[in-house]
Amino acid sequence: MASAWERLLPRLIELTDIGSAIRLMSWDQAVLLPSKGGPGRARAMATLQGFWHEKLTSPEIGELIQELVADDSLDQVQRASTRNLKRDYDKATKVPPELVKEIAETEGLAYQAWTEARPANDFSKLQPHLEKMLDLKKQEADALEWENERYDALLDLFEPDMSAAEVEALFKDLIAGLKPFAEEVLAKVPDKPSFLSATYDSGTQMEFSHWLVRQLGFDTDAGRLDVSPHPFTSAVGKGDIRQTTRTIPDELMASIYATAHETGHALYEQGLPEELLDLPVGTFPSLGIHESQSRLWENQVGRGRAFTTFMLPHLKERFPTDLNDVTPDEFYQGVNDVRRTLIRVHADEVTYNLHLALRLELELALFRDELEIKDLPDAWDDAMERHVGIRPPDAANGVLQDMHWSIGALGYFPTYTIGTLYAAAFFAKAEEDLGGLQDDLAKGECDRLLQWSRDNIHSKAYLYPAKELAQQVLGAELSAEPFLRHLREKYSELYL
Amino acid sequence: MASAWERLLPRLIELTDIGSAIRLMSWDQAVLLPSKGGPGRARAMATLQGFWHEKLTSPEIGELIQELVADDSLDQVQRASTRNLKRDYDKATKVPPELVKEIAETEGLAYQAWTEARPANDFSKLQPHLEKMLDLKKQEADALEWENERYDALLDLFEPDMSAAEVEALFKDLIAGLKPFAEEVLAKVPDKPSFLSATYDSGTQMEFSHWLVRQLGFDTDAGRLDVSPHPFTSAVGKGDIRQTTRTIPDELMASIYATAHETGHALYEQGLPEELLDLPVGTFPSLGIHESQSRLWENQVGRGRAFTTFMLPHLKERFPTDLNDVTPDEFYQGVNDVRRTLIRVHADEVTYNLHLALRLELELALFRDELEIKDLPDAWDDAMERHVGIRPPDAANGVLQDMHWSIGALGYFPTYTIGTLYAAAFFAKAEEDLGGLQDDLAKGECDRLLQWSRDNIHSKAYLYPAKELAQQVLGAELSAEPFLRHLREKYSELYL
Repeated sequence: MASAWERLLPRLIELTDIGSAIRLMSWDQAVLLPSKGGPGRARAMATLQGFWHEKLTSPEIGELIQELVADDSLDQVQRASTRNLKRDYDKATKVPPELVKEIAETEGLAYQAWTEARPANDFSKLQPHLEKMLDLKKQEADALEWENERYDALLDLFEPDMSAAEVEALFKDLIAGLKPFAEEVLAKVPDKPSFLSATYDSGTQMEFSHWLVRQLGFDTDAGRLDVSPHPFTSAVGKGDIRQTTRTIPDELMASIYATAHETGHALYEQGLPEELLDLPVGTFPSLGIHESQSRLWENQVGRGRAFTTFMLPHLKERFPTDLNDVTPDEFYQGVNDVRRTLIRVHADEVTYNLHLALRLELELALFRDELEIKDLPDAWDDAMERHVGIRPPDAANGVLQDMHWSIGALGYFPTYTIGTLYAAAFFAKAEEDLGGLQDDLAKGECDRLLQWSRDNIHSKAYLYPAKELAQQVLGAELSAEPFLRHLREKYSELYL
Repeated sequence: MASAWERLLPRLIELTDIGSAIRLMSWDQAVLLPSKGGPGRARAMATLQGFWHEKLTSPEIGELIQELVADDSLDQVQRASTRNLKRDYDKATKVPPELVKEIAETEGLAYQAWTEARPANDFSKLQPHLEKMLDLKKQEADALEWENERYDALLDLFEPDMSAAEVEALFKDLIAGLKPFAEEVLAKVPDKPSFLSATYDSGTQMEFSHWLVRQLGFDTDAGRLDVSPHPFTSAVGKGDIRQTTRTIPDELMASIYATAHETGHALYEQGLPEELLDLPVGTFPSLGIHESQSRLWENQVGRGRAFTTFMLPHLKERFPTDLNDVTPDEFYQGVNDVRRTLIRVHADEVTYNLHLALRLELELALFRDELEIKDLPDAWDDAMERHVGIRPPDAANGVLQDMHWSIGALGYFPTYTIGTLYAAAFFAKAEEDLGGLQDDLAKGECDRLLQWSRDNIHSKAYLYPAKELAQQVLGAELSAEPFLRHLREKYSELYL
C-alpha cells in the first residue's frame, strides 16, 4: 500500500489546482471582468471555494494527517508540510460552517454598506454591520480557541505564532522611538516640491512601471504587470505571478512606489522553490514576512538615495517637461517627503506606522471589550490626534477610510508594521553580509540583493515558522531597533 | 422531499461554475498567460476538467435523469433540459475513462508533433500520431454507438442529429452549384487592389475593432474584446462573453472580418436568456447554428455593399494614407476579392466551402476505411486540385495546414459549411420579415437585425434541436439554395 505521504500528494495537487483557479478568477475580477459579469463570477468563486474547503476538510485528509503526525520516518519537508497542513485543517474544521457562511454574508453586506457610508460620510450606515462583524469575529476567535486573549486567535490567521502581547510590546518600543523623532522631522520638512503633484501621462507611467519591474528582477516570462485600482499581487500558479499597479495622473510617485512594493511581493513568490509549490510548505510563513519583501524593495531600495539617483534619468527620459530641472537631491528629498496626513495610504515612511499603531490600539480595545463600535468614530479621532497630531474633520477622513474592518480583516493591520520592521532588519543584515550594496543600487544593479533574499528568505518558503526564519536570518529576534535606526540615519541626513 | 428537478438544480449550478472557471483558465491561457505558466495551467485545467466530468457522471445525476425522464409533469424547459443533460451524461459515461485519457494524451503529443511537422514540411513526423488518433476516434465512435456509419457518432458531438449521409447530400448540392459558379467568377476577378496589402498600424486596427464590435451591438459591459493569435469567443460566464481578434500589419481585412465573425458568436452568447444559463438548455443546439451567427455578421452584414459603404469613412478616418483614395465600389470589391488559395483560412466567401468539401471527403474516406493516413498527403493534393484547381507544392501548404485533426477534431469541419448555409438562409428570412434591412445597414444600424436574431434564434437557446429550430425560423429544412442564391446575386453583380 502507498504510504500516507504518497496518498496525500494527489490531494495536495487538487487543492493547489482549485486554489489556482480561484486566484485567477479573483485576479481577473479585479483587473478585467466586465461589470455585468460580477454576480456570476462571485457565485462561481464561492462554488470553487466550497470545493476547496470540502477537499481540505475531508475525513481522508484528517486521517492522513493523523498518520503523518505519528510517523517518525518523515524528512524535514514532509514534517513541515504536515505541520502546516494540520494548521490549515484545524482552522478549517474548528469554525462551524454556519459561522463561516454568516461571516461571508456579513462581509458582503458590510462591504456594500461601507461603499455607501464613506462617500455619504455617515458612519451610522456601517455601524450595525460592524457590530455584527465584531460579534461574529469574536465567535470565530472562540471557535479557533485561544489561551491568553481572543485577539491572539485572529492575529494567528495572518501572523502565525505571534501573540497580541508580543505585537503590543513591539509597537510600544516602536512608537516610543518613532513618535518624538517624527515630530522632530515634521517640524523641519520644507514645502512640497511641485514635481510631486505635476500631471504625468498614465500610459507613460505604466511603461515606466514595466521598465521598473524588470530592473528590480521580476521575470516577465513568469508573471505579469497590469493595472487595477488597488494594487495587489497574486500567485496565480507556478510560473504565473501577477502584480498590479495603478496610475493616477497627478500621483506619479504613488504609481512608482506601488509598483516597487508589489514587485517585492512578486519577487518573493517567484523565488519560492518550484518543487515545494504543491506542498503546504510552498508558501510564506506569515503576512509580516511577505510584507517585509514588499517594504524592502519599496522603501529600503526604492526610496534610498542610491536607487532614486539611478532612477531619475530614466524618469526624465519619459517625463522631461516636469522632471528635467529636478536634481538628484531634490528628487531624493521629494520621494521622501514627510507630512501629517489623515489618510494611511497617503502616509510616508516616517508617519505610516503611527497610523498602524492607532488601528492596533482600537482593534485591541474592541476585542478586549474596552470599546464599543458605536464609540469607534470618537475613539478614532482621539487616537489620530494623539498619534499623528491632527484631528479628522469627518468620518470619511477618519474611521471610514479603510475597507478592511468591513470585510472582517481584524488582526490584519499589524502585519504591515511587522513587515516594515522585518524589512529594515533584513536589509541591514544584507548590507552587512554583502558589502557595497549601495554601490550596486546606484548602478541599478539588484542581483546581489535579490540573490541574498532568495538564499535567506524566498528559498525557505514555509519550512520554518516566521520567528524561527527571522532568527536564522538575523541571528536575533525581531525588534523595532533596525527600523528606528534606518529612519534616524536617513531622515536626520535629509532634514535635521 | 424536494422534487428531482429541485435536487438537480444545485448540481447544475456546480457544473456551470466549474465550467466557468475552466473557460476563464482557457481564455487566459490563449490571451494573457506568461510562457512559464503553461505547464501549471495545463495541469490545473485538467484537474478541473476531471472534477467537471466526475460531477456530470455521478450516479446521483444518473438517477435524477431517470426520475426526470419518467416525470410527466415537467414543463417545456425542464423536459428539454432533461433531454440535453441525458445527451451529455450518456456521452460522458459511454466512453471508457481510459480511452478518454488516451485520446487526451494523444492530442497533446499529436499537437506537439504538428507544431514541428508543419514548419519542417514533413508529414512523416505527424503520421504515426494521426494513425493513432484515427484509431482512437474510431474506438470512441464505437463506444458512443452508431447505426449507419461511424462518422455519424463523431459528427453528433458537434452537430447533433445530423447524419453523415445528410451532410454529404448537403455538400453535394452545394458543390454542384458552387463549383461552376466559382470558376466563372475566378476567371473574371481583376488584380488585387493595393490597399488590401498595405501596412496598417496594429493599435489602430484594434481601436477600429473596438468601434466595430459596439457598432454591431456587442455589449462591452457584458464582455471583452482582446487580442490572440487565433481569434475565438468564449462564454466565460453570465455577463462575461469574451471575444478575441488578431492584428497583422499587412492584413487589415483579416483583422476586421475576424472581429465581425467573433462578434457574431459573441452576440449569440449575449442573447441567450439569462434565466436559462444554469440549465442544460442555456446553450446552443449545434456548432452549425453557432457558426450561422458568426457568418451572418461577418459575411451577410460585414461584407455586404451597405455595411462596407457605411464602414469605409470610419476606416478612412483612422487610415487616411492608404484608404483616402479608395471609393466605396473599390472597397466593396476589394473586401470581396475572390482568389484561388491553398490555405483555407485565406479563402474568400466564394471558394471557402470548396476547402471544406475537400476535408469532409477525406474524413469520410478515413472513417469508411477507404483511405489510410499514409496516403493522406496525396489524397489531399488530388482533392485540392479537383476542388480548388491548384496543387499544393508541399505538405506545409497542403495536409499540414490545419491543426484540427491533430487535436482529434474529426467531424468538426463540416459545421463551418453548415453554419454558412444557415447564415444565408437566416439572413434571407430576416430581410423578408423585416424589409428595408439594407437601408438600415447602409446607416450602420444593426438593431433590427440583432433583435430579429434575438427573437428567432438567440432566445431559443437549446430548447429545440438545431433542425427543429431551423424549421421554426425558416419554415423549411436547411438547403444549399439560399447560400447559392446569395453568392450568385452578389458576385454576378460584382464580377460577371
